[in-house]
Amino acid sequence: MQEESRLERRLDRAVDRATTPRGAAVVIAGVSTVMTVAAGLLMTVVDHEHFPSIGSGLWWAVQTTPTVGYGDHVPTTVAGRLIASLVMLLGIGFLTVITAAITSTFVARSRREVAAAATVEQFRQIDERLERIEAALTNSS
Amino acid sequence: MQEESRLERRLDRAVDRATTPRGAAVVIAGVSTVMTVAAGLLMTVVDHEHFPSIGSGLWWAVQTTPTVGYGDHVPTTVAGRLIASLVMLLGIGFLTVITAAITSTFVARSRREVAAAATVEQFRQIDERLERIEAALTNSS
Amino acid sequence: MQEESRLERRLDRAVDRATTPRGAAVVIAGVSTVMTVAAGLLMTVVDHEHFPSIGSGLWWAVQTTPTVGYGDHVPTTVAGRLIASLVMLLGIGFLTVITAAITSTFVARSRREVAAAATVEQFRQIDERLERIEAALTNSS
Amino acid sequence: MQEESRLERRLDRAVDRATTPRGAAVVIAGVSTVMTVAAGLLMTVVDHEHFPSIGSGLWWAVQTTPTVGYGDHVPTTVAGRLIASLVMLLGIGFLTVITAAITSTFVARSRREVAAAATVEQFRQIDERLERIEAALTNSS
Repeated sequence: MQEESRLERRLDRAVDRATTPRGAAVVIAGVSTVMTVAAGLLMTVVDHEHFPSIGSGLWWAVQTTPTVGYGDHVPTTVAGRLIASLVMLLGIGFLTVITAAITSTFVARSRREVAAAATVEQFRQIDERLERIEAALTNSS
Repeated sequence: MQEESRLERRLDRAVDRATTPRGAAVVIAGVSTVMTVAAGLLMTVVDHEHFPSIGSGLWWAVQTTPTVGYGDHVPTTVAGRLIASLVMLLGIGFLTVITAAITSTFVARSRREVAAAATVEQFRQIDERLERIEAALTNSS
Repeated sequence: MQEESRLERRLDRAVDRATTPRGAAVVIAGVSTVMTVAAGLLMTVVDHEHFPSIGSGLWWAVQTTPTVGYGDHVPTTVAGRLIASLVMLLGIGFLTVITAAITSTFVARSRREVAAAATVEQFRQIDERLERIEAALTNSS
Repeated sequence: MQEESRLERRLDRAVDRATTPRGAAVVIAGVSTVMTVAAGLLMTVVDHEHFPSIGSGLWWAVQTTPTVGYGDHVPTTVAGRLIASLVMLLGIGFLTVITAAITSTFVARSRREVAAAATVEQFRQIDERLERIEAALTNSS
């Protein structure tokens, strides 16, 4: 009974943690969208000369987060470059974590199946032997 | 018998799902090629000034999907920038999923072997003990 | 007793190695920050014409490590290009290892739980059968 | 005996396959270096106007393989752009496979330990019960 509830708690925690990478990917996708838009708007304020319109700010931000970096609009003020540095650092960090999250989801899915298939046969062999032992024991007693 | 068919169904599903990441990588490689060509052609329509030829449109698309982004041909119209944003977003997403798919294929291959090697010895020890028990039981009855 | 201490040593080594990827990520994040700053400063020395200020050197380095590469400041001397080549090579290597480290941390966390959940049920079934055997054996003797 | 040799063959194959990702990473690092140098040299031939020196060709290739793409030297001929497209495609593919190889090496190392630690305790409990059964059986017979 106690064993059972410990198993249940373990499974609950397993579900909680297994959803973390996927959840992280969704949260990061949302955060990086908000960051991209915010950085693009902020750029038109701190470096108005090179980012005269909201469109130019957003366009710069959209090509910076995924590290494309055409270089057609580039900040030249210190404030603008600090914002850009933060966007690049977070952008590359977001990509890294999203890649990791998708990978671990793929790995977890195939792992569940492979693990089951790999050991199931061995468990079956041991179980068969135990069944023979149990039968022999029941007969003898 | 019922146990057997449940095992078979499990193995079937395992095969189905194990092929998913690899299949996903192939599908994504095809989709991203089509998207790159389509975006390059579309660009010559929505921003003809900066993309005067099919060659310039394809050249821009080819360097944008893998996030190289030389910046020698860059869209300036709103429609062109929206298409470019979509190409960058999908491009980075495709890279992420393909990386994840290749990784999980590598991991799955080495996992199958390691898992087997790690537990086989322990199963053998338990099996040996069971064999001794079975022998003793057969002798005593 | 000896078995126990061998298990303990194994667990110790498991903890040591399991922390390696995470530790590697932290170390690499530190090293890449130092490298980025050092390369930016060095650039103002070896190619003073295109990097007239510390700000321009750092700005170039910050956009080169995560492979953004706007191209607004670019080295033209041989020494400058060799430094840049090293920064790009190490930058992409760092990204690769950090991605790998985060992924393996995600995978390890979910693996522990899934592995437990997957085999626990099978162990329980074998254990139940053994319990019945033990009970039958105790009764018969 | 036959069982033993099957186990040995399995372990041999495990070692063979486990070294594949690491070996793949080394091979790919070599191939991508050769490709980068070859593409840089080739570029000075097919687009001599924009790549007048070996230095400019190599400099372009070095910043294209890791997807930095400053855009200070860019091919404009069809042949040059086809070579560049190939370099970008292979460059991003190489990065993807190297990332996957490093990740799977990290995952494999931590997996071996975690897998052992996770099931060792459960094996021990079953083994203890089997020991009691064997002892009871030996006494009774």
